[in-house]
Amino acid sequence: MSTIAICEVGPRDGLQNEKAVIAPEDKVQFIQLLAGAGLKEIEATSFVRPGVIPQLSDAEQVFAAVKHLQTEISLPVLVPNAKGLERALQSGVKSLAVFTATSESFTKKNTNATLKESMDRIRDIMKELQSQPEVRVRGYISTVVDCPYEGKQDPGKCAAIVTELLEMGCFEVSLGETIGTAVPEDIRRLLDSVLRSNPAEKLAGHFHDTRGTALANVFAALDMGIRSFDSSAGGMGGCPYAPGAAGNVATEDLVYALHRSGFETGVNLTDLCRATAHIEQAVGRPSTSRVYQAMKASSIQISEQE
Amino acid sequence: MSTIAICEVGPRDGLQNEKAVIAPEDKVQFIQLLAGAGLKEIEATSFVRPGVIPQLSDAEQVFAAVKHLQTEISLPVLVPNAKGLERALQSGVKSLAVFTATSESFTKKNTNATLKESMDRIRDIMKELQSQPEVRVRGYISTVVDCPYEGKQDPGKCAAIVTELLEMGCFEVSLGETIGTAVPEDIRRLLDSVLRSNPAEKLAGHFHDTRGTALANVFAALDMGIRSFDSSAGGMGGCPYAPGAAGNVATEDLVYALHRSGFETGVNLTDLCRATAHIEQAVGRPSTSRVYQAMKASSIQISEQE
Repeated sequence: MSTIAICEVGPRDGLQNEKAVIAPEDKVQFIQLLAGAGLKEIEATSFVRPGVIPQLSDAEQVFAAVKHLQTEISLPVLVPNAKGLERALQSGVKSLAVFTATSESFTKKNTNATLKESMDRIRDIMKELQSQPEVRVRGYISTVVDCPYEGKQDPGKCAAIVTELLEMGCFEVSLGETIGTAVPEDIRRLLDSVLRSNPAEKLAGHFHDTRGTALANVFAALDMGIRSFDSSAGGMGGCPYAPGAAGNVATEDLVYALHRSGFETGVNLTDLCRATAHIEQAVGRPSTSRVYQAMKASSIQISEQE
Repeated sequence: MSTIAICEVGPRDGLQNEKAVIAPEDKVQFIQLLAGAGLKEIEATSFVRPGVIPQLSDAEQVFAAVKHLQTEISLPVLVPNAKGLERALQSGVKSLAVFTATSESFTKKNTNATLKESMDRIRDIMKELQSQPEVRVRGYISTVVDCPYEGKQDPGKCAAIVTELLEMGCFEVSLGETIGTAVPEDIRRLLDSVLRSNPAEKLAGHFHDTRGTALANVFAALDMGIRSFDSSAGGMGGCPYAPGAAGNVATEDLVYALHRSGFETGVNLTDLCRATAHIEQAVGRPSTSRVYQAMKASSIQISEQE
């Protein structure tokens, strides 16, 4: 049976984009519950400049409280630049995520840099890390299909950025369908191009569910050999720079669909729903995960396996 | 460009399963708005025994008010037996839907009949209609993948029921994934069997979105040549005999995904959202359609086409 790697992005990508301000204690408990549910890679926080994203001003505090989990699992944190790297390393971070996009306009809005400057920042981070080969770095590319400002993106451009990030030393590159407009045909067209020059085992799918197509896109990517996906427990999140964009595909929905399709994830769905129940209360709005809602509505045990 | 036929089931399958009692005037306006949005086949109501489903006790009243639309579009009504047929014909109905299931237990709970009795009732209806060849009959089969009482269903059994319904004279058979547990692999296994003895152009997919997999299942069916799907505006509905079952795939999500994938539906997404906005107020709970939510949240025009 084939195994799928899931990177849980709820505590960072998810909560960062919720309106409610979540107490650091709630974030810590959320991460602990997610780890308890069997998630092996949990995006813990982001070391952006304090003040830019108020939701993330507690990065040090949150990371210090969950740091010990790194003996068992991976806790990537988002790092935008050399300053963020310094803070992350001081905090004892062993796994980083760096980010760029295919779109100039999106990069400008998101990071106040040109695309070239954004890649230069990543190169600086990777150079700085040459003396610390134990620190893993994951690359994110946003707007891989559509940009809210520029529209349709060129898959070839994405393919070239993937190659550059892998050459810089990223162990994996996550393809971010940021605004959730894509359908399976878009994902096939993108991967047709990206896989021509990059191996499937170095790629992950990061699909937002704004128009309900995320899970269909996951299946399109699975068909093309992708075995790593990002998801957000309870479907928390969105994107502040992409109006109307909903959260990532819900981890519950992804896990249910994968298990039922014969894949292993190592995640226990009931425990995962407990983590979502905790954060749902803290966030103050109901989870958008269909599987979570179904499990809550009925006391019927959902059959995950054939 | 290929065309997909959509059967809008919101006014019947959808509203029947909502807790709120909807005024007949609201149903009528809903149907009119749906027709205005370009839907060519709208399930208008159901002629079940008055009292069994209180939501449907206004069948005659609702149908009388929309009957004139039949000059342009199809308004199928659900008919469970000879008595229902009599009422439907007296009301001037030109398109019927009859229903059965693959599961004995579900048929018993749903219609208080054995599977054989259920097929006999349909045969009686078809005989009665021999003198009225202008009345079209659509067949529904429930629980085609899983039954809430019996679990996994045999695709071969479904294939045989499809053949029987087509031989009786149904112009199309809709395959009902009633409880929304299926993933694309289930749909492929089902269709592999059903298509061995039945043509794709006589089949429709009716997928509930209880676990978020409905649209992924639509794409699996599209890949296998199915060109007709049922959906519910705003994702209204569920199934009272299948605990925890959510509504059909939302028509907005289906239409968006199909248009973006290069298919034609004849449906205007903005007008469709107006129909959902109307019924959302009457139902008193927010629509679960992701596309509807996205269009409501942002004033950005969703790009439907390449």
